[in-house]
Amino acid sequence: MKNLLPGGFGELTPDKQKIQNVVKEIIIKNYETFWYINIETPAVELNEVLTSKWWEEVWKQIFWLYWLKQWPEDLKPYSLHFDLTVPFARYVVDNESILKFPFKRYQIQKVWRGERQQRWRFKEFIQADIDLVWNNLPLNYDSEVILTLYRTLKEIFEFLKIWKWVEIHLNNKKFIEWICTMYNISWDTKTIFFWLLDGFYKATPEEFLIKLQNLVWENFKEINKLINTKIDELDISNPFLSEWINELKEVYTSLKEKWVNILFDPYITRWLDYYTWTVFETFISNYDNFWSICSGWRYDNLVESIRKVTGEWKNNKDTNNYEWVWWSIGLSRLFWWLDETWLINKKLPLTQAIIFNTLWNNLSYREKIWELLRNNWISTDIYYSDEKLWKQFNYAENKNIPFWIFAWDEEQTKNEVIVKNLYSREQESISINDLVSYIKQKLKNILK
Amino acid sequence: MKNLLPGGFGELTPDKQKIQNVVKEIIIKNYETFWYINIETPAVELNEVLTSKWWEEVWKQIFWLYWLKQWPEDLKPYSLHFDLTVPFARYVVDNESILKFPFKRYQIQKVWRGERQQRWRFKEFIQADIDLVWNNLPLNYDSEVILTLYRTLKEIFEFLKIWKWVEIHLNNKKFIEWICTMYNISWDTKTIFFWLLDGFYKATPEEFLIKLQNLVWENFKEINKLINTKIDELDISNPFLSEWINELKEVYTSLKEKWVNILFDPYITRWLDYYTWTVFETFISNYDNFWSICSGWRYDNLVESIRKVTGEWKNNKDTNNYEWVWWSIGLSRLFWWLDETWLINKKLPLTQAIIFNTLWNNLSYREKIWELLRNNWISTDIYYSDEKLWKQFNYAENKNIPFWIFAWDEEQTKNEVIVKNLYSREQESISINDLVSYIKQKLKNILK
Repeated sequence: MKNLLPGGFGELTPDKQKIQNVVKEIIIKNYETFWYINIETPAVELNEVLTSKWWEEVWKQIFWLYWLKQWPEDLKPYSLHFDLTVPFARYVVDNESILKFPFKRYQIQKVWRGERQQRWRFKEFIQADIDLVWNNLPLNYDSEVILTLYRTLKEIFEFLKIWKWVEIHLNNKKFIEWICTMYNISWDTKTIFFWLLDGFYKATPEEFLIKLQNLVWENFKEINKLINTKIDELDISNPFLSEWINELKEVYTSLKEKWVNILFDPYITRWLDYYTWTVFETFISNYDNFWSICSGWRYDNLVESIRKVTGEWKNNKDTNNYEWVWWSIGLSRLFWWLDETWLINKKLPLTQAIIFNTLWNNLSYREKIWELLRNNWISTDIYYSDEKLWKQFNYAENKNIPFWIFAWDEEQTKNEVIVKNLYSREQESISINDLVSYIKQKLKNILK
Repeated sequence: MKNLLPGGFGELTPDKQKIQNVVKEIIIKNYETFWYINIETPAVELNEVLTSKWWEEVWKQIFWLYWLKQWPEDLKPYSLHFDLTVPFARYVVDNESILKFPFKRYQIQKVWRGERQQRWRFKEFIQADIDLVWNNLPLNYDSEVILTLYRTLKEIFEFLKIWKWVEIHLNNKKFIEWICTMYNISWDTKTIFFWLLDGFYKATPEEFLIKLQNLVWENFKEINKLINTKIDELDISNPFLSEWINELKEVYTSLKEKWVNILFDPYITRWLDYYTWTVFETFISNYDNFWSICSGWRYDNLVESIRKVTGEWKNNKDTNNYEWVWWSIGLSRLFWWLDETWLINKKLPLTQAIIFNTLWNNLSYREKIWELLRNNWISTDIYYSDEKLWKQFNYAENKNIPFWIFAWDEEQTKNEVIVKNLYSREQESISINDLVSYIKQKLKNILK
């Protein structure tokens, strides 16, 4: 049969959806405990906002919207957002008079990019972003963001029973800036230098060295040595370098004290120009590609371009541009990665109990049991159609429902039901009075 | 300042967003307890699917998507979905070989309609739909859907402390069909007749009668009398009428037994042709307009049009077309309505506690307290910047944080903190060992 799902869009099966929902709950619980507050922005932003600060690279990926196949003249065209950063920058500019700073928000929403389909890339995916914004953001907040994400990821992995190490790789971009200054690397070369470092893990060390040599010629050995020096052995007589080392060490030490699995990695740079200072990415033992699922950094200058759209920037050059620290978990991408690497072992029952249609004439008795279970938040299916019992069993087994409940006349007379446990295959007669506690007790073992 | 939010799109303030999130959790908890399972479909559907069964009326509201400003030739164009019904019908057709029937799903997602802005209407809004699908769906499932929604709405209202009655108005469309047959009402007139009944609550009784007379001429008095007859007094010698009465009574009685506030209302008809049998809408005491927030019905024939897109329909006329019962809560619309009518009295703290930056040199002591609270899922803000204390208080008060925590050297020596309660204004020294239970106990009162 022809599949009618548009190409490049993903859809989860109900059991995978359930696991993703629980993972999302874990993210929300952790983000909120770390005092981030939730906002949602619309799926669209004005085109002038979306294109205020990005490169053609990203513009090519925008899904443009048309209404009535063209825009009425009195309305400004808008399009689907391609990330949650630009919408949030717009939100801050729009609402700065009523927001309380430091403003810490999380946002879990879909974003859309018209990418050609490839591994783990879809045209629609969910991101779970946190951003921390203030006009003067002490470095403690860099640590705080990383701690939040580390704890969140750790709990997700524990829940999914994935015994892999989450590892945070930390750098500070002032280091690279300092190298560029020291070796007179021009602006053009600098961009490529950043991009080269950023691609280190995608190349072999030899390939990297050749590319480095092609870029900085006679200095390449010295630069390579510098990059690979341990922090403690670096010469800090240069004031700019010492500033960088102190910043990095402060974040690093604070996180080490909080048992975060963190290490210094000079190859973590992001080439985009608005990322400053702290940069960090997440790696997982034996899965090099995981970094594209979680990364973050600090940047300083994003709202400026939004202010230009409002015209406010021209009139008031003193206007606050804010410092930001950002991190994102690519929720959809995490899921596709887990799925492809067979790391999801978890099975969660979508429905916890089912009351079979044993006899039509005792429906009201069965509905009473149903109500009792529902009132105690035990998700309970009641089968209404009078299909043969084997068909009903088939349905319950396919849906992986753990508790099977039967009530014939005899059970009704004794105010009992028969409960069969799909997993342990045990079967018992239980009095109505004990039913809720019986199921809740047994459920605990199943959900572990 | 110029606002950059696109016109016709809504955005909630963080405190309203929090309340909406809790309402959403209540919806999910209830839907799942009534054994609905969650799926999500992409924001887009193929244009041929979206336009497979709707009228120009709806097509005019579609937001068409363009990628690279035009579609590459090898890709099929798709657009934003305008409801969750068409995507779900597509989902069922695409996945019917792996789904277990009866299939009961809930879906809480944004939908988009290019409507001109008016009261409670935005171009983007969230719907919380349930659908129950099977090839032969006993009437018990009609009751079940209504019970699910009634319980859900009741809990939402209780949570928000809105003491209004939720009232379900029930009808069965076979009644109107029967009237049409009895009075030889033609197909064209029938459509208008349905539409007229549906608009009853928007007109005065006099206006309604005049319109009815204009439509059915000499029969209008008899028809009007028939509509207003009580169920028990209707002549059931006509087999079609008796079928309708039995169907209606079965649903009605079953719900009355479950304490649902339900009544028969012959004016609840939906004019669209694929709604058959049971129709129901929700009213709230003194708020006539509430029906547009929650309604539902049974329909039989929706996947047929989707099958035509796949070409499957032509080849196999026996293919299952399913019976469906559907209900939707317009989550966004519910919110705008509550907001405009001043019915949200609830205030929920976004963050539960804050540890002030009293002294820099005891940061590690304060971070230990922070970790203790976090590990017990108490959402706790730690203020890192060394702003003056009154500025920190200002921030905490604006954010409505109930528990204010202070730790100077003296407290550290005694392994204590000072806790101030923003609401009761009481202030106490609490030992670290008792801190978690102290806050949890007090929080209970605040969240009530």
